[in-house]
Amino acid sequence: MKTLGTLGERETIRLIERIIQSDASIGPGDDCAAIDLGDKYLLITTDMMATKSHVPKGMGPYDVGWSIIAVNLSDIAAMGGRPIGLVTAIGITRGHPIDFIEQMADGMNDCARRFGTSIVGGDTKEHDDLVLCGTAFGEVPKDGLLLRKGARAGDLIAVSGQLGRAGAGFHSMKKGLGLKEAEDSLRRPWPRIREGIALSQSGFVTSCMDISDGLSASIFEMSKNSGMTYEVDYEKVPKAKEVEMAFHDLERQKDLVLNFGDDFELLFTIKREEEEPLAKLAKECGCPFTVIGKVTSGEENILIDMGKREKLENLGYEHFRTRQ
Amino acid sequence: MKTLGTLGERETIRLIERIIQSDASIGPGDDCAAIDLGDKYLLITTDMMATKSHVPKGMGPYDVGWSIIAVNLSDIAAMGGRPIGLVTAIGITRGHPIDFIEQMADGMNDCARRFGTSIVGGDTKEHDDLVLCGTAFGEVPKDGLLLRKGARAGDLIAVSGQLGRAGAGFHSMKKGLGLKEAEDSLRRPWPRIREGIALSQSGFVTSCMDISDGLSASIFEMSKNSGMTYEVDYEKVPKAKEVEMAFHDLERQKDLVLNFGDDFELLFTIKREEEEPLAKLAKECGCPFTVIGKVTSGEENILIDMGKREKLENLGYEHFRTRQ
Repeated sequence: MKTLGTLGERETIRLIERIIQSDASIGPGDDCAAIDLGDKYLLITTDMMATKSHVPKGMGPYDVGWSIIAVNLSDIAAMGGRPIGLVTAIGITRGHPIDFIEQMADGMNDCARRFGTSIVGGDTKEHDDLVLCGTAFGEVPKDGLLLRKGARAGDLIAVSGQLGRAGAGFHSMKKGLGLKEAEDSLRRPWPRIREGIALSQSGFVTSCMDISDGLSASIFEMSKNSGMTYEVDYEKVPKAKEVEMAFHDLERQKDLVLNFGDDFELLFTIKREEEEPLAKLAKECGCPFTVIGKVTSGEENILIDMGKREKLENLGYEHFRTRQ
Repeated sequence: MKTLGTLGERETIRLIERIIQSDASIGPGDDCAAIDLGDKYLLITTDMMATKSHVPKGMGPYDVGWSIIAVNLSDIAAMGGRPIGLVTAIGITRGHPIDFIEQMADGMNDCARRFGTSIVGGDTKEHDDLVLCGTAFGEVPKDGLLLRKGARAGDLIAVSGQLGRAGAGFHSMKKGLGLKEAEDSLRRPWPRIREGIALSQSGFVTSCMDISDGLSASIFEMSKNSGMTYEVDYEKVPKAKEVEMAFHDLERQKDLVLNFGDDFELLFTIKREEEEPLAKLAKECGCPFTVIGKVTSGEENILIDMGKREKLENLGYEHFRTRQ
């Protein structure tokens, strides 16, 4: 009997997508679905978090609540949207302390409020274990919609912020390294709402997604959607300072930066002549936007490291299989 | 240490609602949240289903998929809305057969298509156990929004369809009674989308909700929202024919009709002079609408049975506590 363990998460999702007949303008397969509301799109995204597989030790109830909101808002940001609300469904045991749910609800509420939106409803059910499901909705003008597809050969690849910080935080928690800022960034993901809106309004962004599963997985996802190939220059990738504090070994550092995920930065492409306006926009947003490579029409996705070209491997996190 | 088991589901939900600061026109506490989109409201509802506590034995993967869509659409119906899409988050084990998820996705897709809408996206994650979270969104003209509050003394109470069928189906499955139609109605809940829209457009409905947790619980919920009291005439309550096949005992029949839930019929109130137009509307919809009592400004909710007035007890299903 074939099980989902043999398929892996991505193939399971593809299987479901083949069955579901979506009427939406943008259906499954992007960061959000988009429904035509006439003058704009309604964006919708949903994300489930089960404590055992998704919550690192060291995260308290407040962090868990914050995170389920943040990861959903990150998907709205990836499409260039302005969030207009969220709903949360909570499966929880009868043995959970009242304190726990109070702190978790505080975390949810604070994260939504911080990013200019609110939780408008939800569902609470008894379950064997804590499981959270958040759904965010947003709106975006029709000409501002950012998709995973859209890049053309010659476009530049860019990312917001720095990569590897959440991964460094994960190892810091595990090994007691005390990298507080990195641990905080894992505990309290920061959705790039303001940056996503700015990129959407700029007019020069040709595609966009968030890096929840790691840079390599996101590059492959974009490549699948655009039909183009991507060349990433590893030296240009902005690395969080905590990466080298987490590991001395350069290969492990590289793995953290390229494959760990949970950074929730935006990966996007811009028209090649727009590098200067991008730098200007970064200043306005108070967030670094760094060009890390270019879009090509080659055979495969490439990583350039110290001038050496190698095949980029798709090693992002995948559920149903064991984490490396 | 106080736990959620001491609070019960309703108090837990109230606790969360006190923490969450919603910006929506209608926030938590009704069947859906409603967000102002200018000329209309966007309706949103979310519902989680964990197999162990919510899925009766005898339900296959197709039924489970159908149900998570149906229960969410029922909330859209309760507000008078037209569904415009759904997203589903699926937590599932790596040991589940591929067949299982195919059938479940078929059930989800078929239910959405049957009611004129579609699944536009989702999330799939590994989890210890099957857990589903559906989120439906819909739209309703501003003057057509139906809420749990709004009834005034003198209004008539009505329900769609018949009550007790899903409960009879539950007992039939448990005891092998072979009440096929009743079992089917439990396996494949039927959201009253068309009826909800018709009631919304009628202009004479003063409040509405769906009866997912049983008639008694729904009456108490309406009463809490409207500040009114409700008198239900048990003899007038339309009972599914399977109720007396499930139990000979009249008290157990009554418990099924009043307290079991899962029928997903609409409970609503109308202006007192509109009983005839309601009968006409029922014919147009091809669905019985039955007046079962009236709204009062008394001390408590009343059940009239064989002419005898008794206090209506709130015995609907509540999670975190043991089912009777």
